[in-house]
Amino acid sequence: MLRKVFYISDGTAITAEVFGHAVLSQFPLEFDALTIPFVETEAKAEAVKAQINDCFITTGERPLVFHSIVKPEIRDVIYSSEGLDYDFLNTFVAPLEKQLGIAATPAMHRTHGKANEGYEARIDAINYAMENDDGQTMKHMDKADLILLGVSRCGKTPSSLYLSMQFGIKAANYPFTEDDMDNLKLPDALKRNKGKLFGLTIDPERLHEIRHSRMSNSRYSSLRQCRMEVKEVEMMYQKERIPFVNTTNHSVEEIATKILEITGLKRHMF
Amino acid sequence: MLRKVFYISDGTAITAEVFGHAVLSQFPLEFDALTIPFVETEAKAEAVKAQINDCFITTGERPLVFHSIVKPEIRDVIYSSEGLDYDFLNTFVAPLEKQLGIAATPAMHRTHGKANEGYEARIDAINYAMENDDGQTMKHMDKADLILLGVSRCGKTPSSLYLSMQFGIKAANYPFTEDDMDNLKLPDALKRNKGKLFGLTIDPERLHEIRHSRMSNSRYSSLRQCRMEVKEVEMMYQKERIPFVNTTNHSVEEIATKILEITGLKRHMF
Repeated sequence: MLRKVFYISDGTAITAEVFGHAVLSQFPLEFDALTIPFVETEAKAEAVKAQINDCFITTGERPLVFHSIVKPEIRDVIYSSEGLDYDFLNTFVAPLEKQLGIAATPAMHRTHGKANEGYEARIDAINYAMENDDGQTMKHMDKADLILLGVSRCGKTPSSLYLSMQFGIKAANYPFTEDDMDNLKLPDALKRNKGKLFGLTIDPERLHEIRHSRMSNSRYSSLRQCRMEVKEVEMMYQKERIPFVNTTNHSVEEIATKILEITGLKRHMF
Repeated sequence: MLRKVFYISDGTAITAEVFGHAVLSQFPLEFDALTIPFVETEAKAEAVKAQINDCFITTGERPLVFHSIVKPEIRDVIYSSEGLDYDFLNTFVAPLEKQLGIAATPAMHRTHGKANEGYEARIDAINYAMENDDGQTMKHMDKADLILLGVSRCGKTPSSLYLSMQFGIKAANYPFTEDDMDNLKLPDALKRNKGKLFGLTIDPERLHEIRHSRMSNSRYSSLRQCRMEVKEVEMMYQKERIPFVNTTNHSVEEIATKILEITGLKRHMF
């Protein structure tokens, strides 16, 4: 039976999940995980404690409990359960208090809450990415922080959305289609924003697979067409000195952080 | 002068950022943070160490270094710098090894990499959310995991995108516009997917502000119109027994996790 894991927080529990997931992914095991957000009252904490204790009784193993609970009285209830606590917040807060010479002033919802400065800017960035996806308009290119280029299905849309959501970057994206291939060039709106351009590319074999699963046996999805488009676009990047990355073996997180690293665009934290 | 903070990783550094940000946000201080991802070689680690040491010489204060480095030889270089290490991965891996009775098998890019099962499903969910945003088509509603409803600018789009990106949920969204208000009812494609419907609402005053900043002095942005639309839509949610949340004081993370909590939809972790 899989070991039971709880991710618990008085907020969204996203931090507890990310933290626990990162630690557990170092082990060659699978886990049975349950996330419990918004444990904001002692009554709710008692119910969670009962759930943890039940789980111990049923399985005979103490569940692993990853938590990032800000309120001490809530935390104490979870501590008193049969779970094994991995409390990353407090493990590091105490030494930091000493180092910084200042007491922590626990406040909920500071991490993934809205009190955050720049929250509006983030929503603006998300809306910007949506409205300027896939070259649907060129009107707002001057307002972009970044413009991703590439052939259809190379990863432009997920990358733009991730950059806007995670880092508050206004990312537009523009596709090169089959019709462009005979004479590949940058539209004027992109030429005058040359410093914002960033190319994506992908292995033709992988592109063929992706297109095939959406539109099988078309010219669009043929390996020959994929090879030709990728080759033309990469030549253009080189000629125009547009930096680019290959997305084939990378997640959106990796692509996005790689772009930030190369362009030097500043991340915002939310 | 603000205390310097480094977020360092041999991967994307997103986990190190989330972790460090969560810990530091417990202090009533501002920090000057720098993220350095992809520290994958000892040479690169030495360069980062030099940067940390320079920073100590310049500021006279040891920088705070939050890291989640998987490779021991890279980690050792960072450990040997003048920075103060907050190494959440190793702090918790050792006790877990003991508890689980198994050695960790450190592997890079497991957390935010692509090796992840379900990565394709995540990209499909993102594409689904894009293609089924704002009621632009009703053709694919039967394939949705979740359909968000609400008036224009109440938070549907960012919430749908976040749910797809973070949790791999196929979230469509459908707007109710002024023209619907005289006789507010669910289109057939939504009626037959009633169990997937989830409403968003917002305080009329806040809606008025948001609309005003996009389209000032219009009927669309008037407080009177905002009040009317919100009232009509909330009455419909109640009549049709559609669960709903108020987005006014909440971040996308909070809205998304609240929706998962209420609907019981399962989160995927990437």
